[in-house]
Amino acid sequence: MNQPHKPLNLAQQLIRDHLVSGEMTPGSEIALRMDQALLQDVLGTLVMLELEAMGLDRVHTNPSVQYIDHGLVQADNLNAETYLFLKSACERFGVWYSGPGNGISHPVHMEYFGVPGQSIVGCDSHTTSAGSLGMLAIGAGGIEVATAMAGEPLYLTMPKIWGIRLEGNLPDWVSAKDIVLELLRRHGVAGGKNTIIEYHGPGLDGLSAMDRHVLANMGTEMGATATVFPSDEETRRFLAARGREADWKALAAEPGCTYDLEETLDLSALVPMIALPSSPDKVVPVSEVAGEPLHQAYVGSSGNPGYRDFAVVASMVKGRQVADGVSLDINPSSRQVLSTLIRDGYLGDLVASGARLHQTGCNGCIGMGQAPAAGLNSLRTVPRNFPGRSGTREDSVFLCSPETAAASALAGVISDPRTLEMAYPRILEPERMVVNRDVFTPPLPLAEARLKPLQKTDNTPALPELHPLPDTLEVPVLLVTGDNISTDDIMPAGQRVMPYWSSVYASAPFTFEAVDADYAGRAEASRELGGHAIVGGHNYGQGSSRENAALVPRYLGLQVVLAKSFARIHWQNLVCFGALPLSFIDEADAARLEQGDCVAIRDLHAQLAAGPELTAEIVGKGNIRLHHGLSERQRELLAVGGVINHLRARQGEQNPAGAKG
Amino acid sequence: MNQPHKPLNLAQQLIRDHLVSGEMTPGSEIALRMDQALLQDVLGTLVMLELEAMGLDRVHTNPSVQYIDHGLVQADNLNAETYLFLKSACERFGVWYSGPGNGISHPVHMEYFGVPGQSIVGCDSHTTSAGSLGMLAIGAGGIEVATAMAGEPLYLTMPKIWGIRLEGNLPDWVSAKDIVLELLRRHGVAGGKNTIIEYHGPGLDGLSAMDRHVLANMGTEMGATATVFPSDEETRRFLAARGREADWKALAAEPGCTYDLEETLDLSALVPMIALPSSPDKVVPVSEVAGEPLHQAYVGSSGNPGYRDFAVVASMVKGRQVADGVSLDINPSSRQVLSTLIRDGYLGDLVASGARLHQTGCNGCIGMGQAPAAGLNSLRTVPRNFPGRSGTREDSVFLCSPETAAASALAGVISDPRTLEMAYPRILEPERMVVNRDVFTPPLPLAEARLKPLQKTDNTPALPELHPLPDTLEVPVLLVTGDNISTDDIMPAGQRVMPYWSSVYASAPFTFEAVDADYAGRAEASRELGGHAIVGGHNYGQGSSRENAALVPRYLGLQVVLAKSFARIHWQNLVCFGALPLSFIDEADAARLEQGDCVAIRDLHAQLAAGPELTAEIVGKGNIRLHHGLSERQRELLAVGGVINHLRARQGEQNPAGAKG
Repeated sequence: MNQPHKPLNLAQQLIRDHLVSGEMTPGSEIALRMDQALLQDVLGTLVMLELEAMGLDRVHTNPSVQYIDHGLVQADNLNAETYLFLKSACERFGVWYSGPGNGISHPVHMEYFGVPGQSIVGCDSHTTSAGSLGMLAIGAGGIEVATAMAGEPLYLTMPKIWGIRLEGNLPDWVSAKDIVLELLRRHGVAGGKNTIIEYHGPGLDGLSAMDRHVLANMGTEMGATATVFPSDEETRRFLAARGREADWKALAAEPGCTYDLEETLDLSALVPMIALPSSPDKVVPVSEVAGEPLHQAYVGSSGNPGYRDFAVVASMVKGRQVADGVSLDINPSSRQVLSTLIRDGYLGDLVASGARLHQTGCNGCIGMGQAPAAGLNSLRTVPRNFPGRSGTREDSVFLCSPETAAASALAGVISDPRTLEMAYPRILEPERMVVNRDVFTPPLPLAEARLKPLQKTDNTPALPELHPLPDTLEVPVLLVTGDNISTDDIMPAGQRVMPYWSSVYASAPFTFEAVDADYAGRAEASRELGGHAIVGGHNYGQGSSRENAALVPRYLGLQVVLAKSFARIHWQNLVCFGALPLSFIDEADAARLEQGDCVAIRDLHAQLAAGPELTAEIVGKGNIRLHHGLSERQRELLAVGGVINHLRARQGEQNPAGAKG
Repeated sequence: MNQPHKPLNLAQQLIRDHLVSGEMTPGSEIALRMDQALLQDVLGTLVMLELEAMGLDRVHTNPSVQYIDHGLVQADNLNAETYLFLKSACERFGVWYSGPGNGISHPVHMEYFGVPGQSIVGCDSHTTSAGSLGMLAIGAGGIEVATAMAGEPLYLTMPKIWGIRLEGNLPDWVSAKDIVLELLRRHGVAGGKNTIIEYHGPGLDGLSAMDRHVLANMGTEMGATATVFPSDEETRRFLAARGREADWKALAAEPGCTYDLEETLDLSALVPMIALPSSPDKVVPVSEVAGEPLHQAYVGSSGNPGYRDFAVVASMVKGRQVADGVSLDINPSSRQVLSTLIRDGYLGDLVASGARLHQTGCNGCIGMGQAPAAGLNSLRTVPRNFPGRSGTREDSVFLCSPETAAASALAGVISDPRTLEMAYPRILEPERMVVNRDVFTPPLPLAEARLKPLQKTDNTPALPELHPLPDTLEVPVLLVTGDNISTDDIMPAGQRVMPYWSSVYASAPFTFEAVDADYAGRAEASRELGGHAIVGGHNYGQGSSRENAALVPRYLGLQVVLAKSFARIHWQNLVCFGALPLSFIDEADAARLEQGDCVAIRDLHAQLAAGPELTAEIVGKGNIRLHHGLSERQRELLAVGGVINHLRARQGEQNPAGAKG
């Protein structure tokens, strides 16, 4: 550290405690040790296949937990078979398994596994939620999570620490969601980029650990790398109510510490807020849209997963009926929350009001069921309202608190809950939740685990072998795209395609289907002929971090992408899987390239080592200059065909006798 | 009646009380007045569009109830928009609306609407379940239900009455499902064809109304037209527990009556039974397959919808854990059952055991979610295990009682519940269920209803106008099929296609897709050129009664089907929609016909009126003789282009000023 005697804020302490290498100066590359790992099913299958491909004997993160919470619509055999594969992979590699029905990864992890002061990486962007317990909690791409599970550090750019001081107490009818919506209103969806948000101040006393989860969860919506909370009496109370007080320890910023960015928020001045369609930062007070018609009110998700969030809705609708024509959809976040709501009578009140009770899981938040009618207003307590995320292309989704959702469901129109004629039902956190650890399958002892085969099907085949780039690359351009190609353009999502994400081979025919339906066929044909190149515009690979948008084209023979510019994570994913991302130094060169041109790069590895630029020939059209910007570590990855080959060699050294999964 | 002084069994009394015309002699055509009507969503959309096309002002059946219970997986906007359309159609036509979350039509209808002694027709084959309350309850095709809602009688062939006398009491661990499985073992899936099953005898005393529902529901699996039970003290108790004792009246067979078929079943001799994959009549004692591995245990559906059926499972798993690797899926059948299970503590026990709680509805029974892994054993309390019905093509589904499902889920292998080491939890029916009539939307007063527009989308367009067949038919053969073409071949089901069933136009491209993917295109092109013919083999149109398998090809220009033989319901559906089904008198003629041949029938209507046979010319190949077998009533339908045109003319006479929907 530059200033070792300066008092540290909590985020800095957590980073210091996990720092493997690098300087804690914003903008520097740091390497962090990850204590725990979290997987969800849709993105976890490839992670498990990566562990297999690496030849990993047993995961190093502890606990590592595989949750089944996304793909719960079992429309055919594929999802059930994915569960079986993941369970067998858990047995093989030493991972906890949480099957369908146990709940959403983020609240369940907090209930049963979260430990103040530890670090966690997960292949889900809302892994940040665990910051509510004083953890350093980061969402990342699948291959980065696999790498961390293999015992390697997570590489990050040291973020700025953004201190947000909370003062005062929340007024009646205003709750945690309104706090984070107000921050989104102020700072927008990019306002937290390259920062860790650290909440502190006296206003924290009124926020339970699950209220803090709401804020840590939606820090991701501001683009923050992580959100951290102190571990205090509320944290102790949360763990004690779940029989885990022994996991508690106090954590707080050191007195006199400073923050790179500072802000104060007076909770007592807040009013109910709502994000309009279709961005989490289009936030206004609910009163501004009160009276608008309502089609659906959706309660649940990792954006409002707490016992309180359901209990307050139950208390509001108790003895009343949901307005005719409105669907009040209740999505329990976890088995623990559901069980406790049953025990305390709240679930009965919800069902009696005409609400519709769904299975425990992510459900409609990620477009798996409960898709609303096109153009009609859906109020949701979920973290995101990107267009079409609900499953309905022309959706109209608002984000709000449970109080606003319930008040609106009762009135039949969007309503400020303060206008409801009743006393505010202030919910006390139970002293004891209904706890059941037996619903998880714990890791097997090593000797037993080594005997377990992966339970594979045609839909969970081993990853393809990826070969190092040759020293002389001579490949045809099979696709020329415009600007802003997203990972969704490269690898589509949705109920139609996602069940196949576990198979590189079954995913392959969908690659770029909306951009050029013939690309996949041409690319497949290029595989045995030395592969191919893609030419992109600006911001190539933007959007979701899904790693299959790099892995699947790479399998189809992609060797090199030449683009005007790249989205950061996709650029990293290409390198991780051994493909070469190159930027035009003269953007005008992009226009010279056409589908069918041949790109030749000679002395490739020597050129990469010689400096940040290299020369390629467009056969028959002359030479062009390109930028690569690879670090030495990344050049090493490319030299062996990507991170899996790199770590497989490493595992072989560490565990020469280890059985291969 | 032939013998007015002979004592009548209950089925005969119910038929007598609803007889509009015909003789109560088995095999004769009878016309029955329908008091009530039941619609579910997937098949109800076309019924509502038919009411619109008929120009109906208000339904005559009372109550008529539209349930939303099938299409609950809202993967995109279509299902939610279907609900809105159906709700608006309920408002327009005077139908009760039961939205998603209220439950499966059959138990909910029993709870809130069933009345002993009344008749009911529904567009779902399990409408027979209402026979449990002493109703005459019949499932039929959508157009027949629409016709009944328009005030017309339901035409049936008078069935034989099959009296089954129950004696003795069920042993511990044996329940209603085992009775009907034993009957399926004895008689097979066609054993009840052209019969009404009437249960009687002292063994009935031990069966609650919901137990009787299980038997009435699965009478359909034996092919029975209906199943009837007396209305007795159990019936009174059922209605009283739901605040509806006033709807009760005693109904029973007259002393000394006889049955066309007679059978006795000693309940005390029964053991737990199970139907093996993949037919409801492949029944053996559970003990014969005990020890086989288990993947899933599924509780719910109209095949075991009672409070008892869930409470007994809860009592069995209380304080225990479902075996690792088994999914115990709980599917509440109705809001009333769910609410009462919560109130009485059973739901908490289920969730605590590791069971997975799903939304209230049909769900996995009809392949909407919970599809098992291929080839792995799924034990289900549902009524049917036809191959692929679960959503998994290569499924392995068994049918059993809740007791057998729960015992197996605990053991992790298929288990005879009698081997479980515990006292049999004999569940008492609650004296008072949790009742809430406010979750239904009642019909509007007529004046208000007339002002309500149907809330249509592109996916619920008006039905096409169907024109009478011309007097000279000269059409090309566009498709020649083999034997046993099913309605599934003609109009596919499944989550991919069913959301489009509400639109004839959107369904059209799927027509015959697995048989001949180009048929739909050729047929579409034929529409403006006078239409086309199809040539079929034996048993053309077998399987499900779905009416769109006739309506959609008819819209695509189908004028005439020439086949070796027809399945009965599809034959009727073709006539209802104004297409002409003709059977080859000399089967060898079928082989003379090829795709592209031109079929010419001259003086069509005169030929139909002249007798049961007619002559057609295969242009260039000579004349052939064909059989039609149409009654005068059916010839009248064909002369006006089908039953919708016929009833529209009738409505116009009855309600000259009626607003059109």
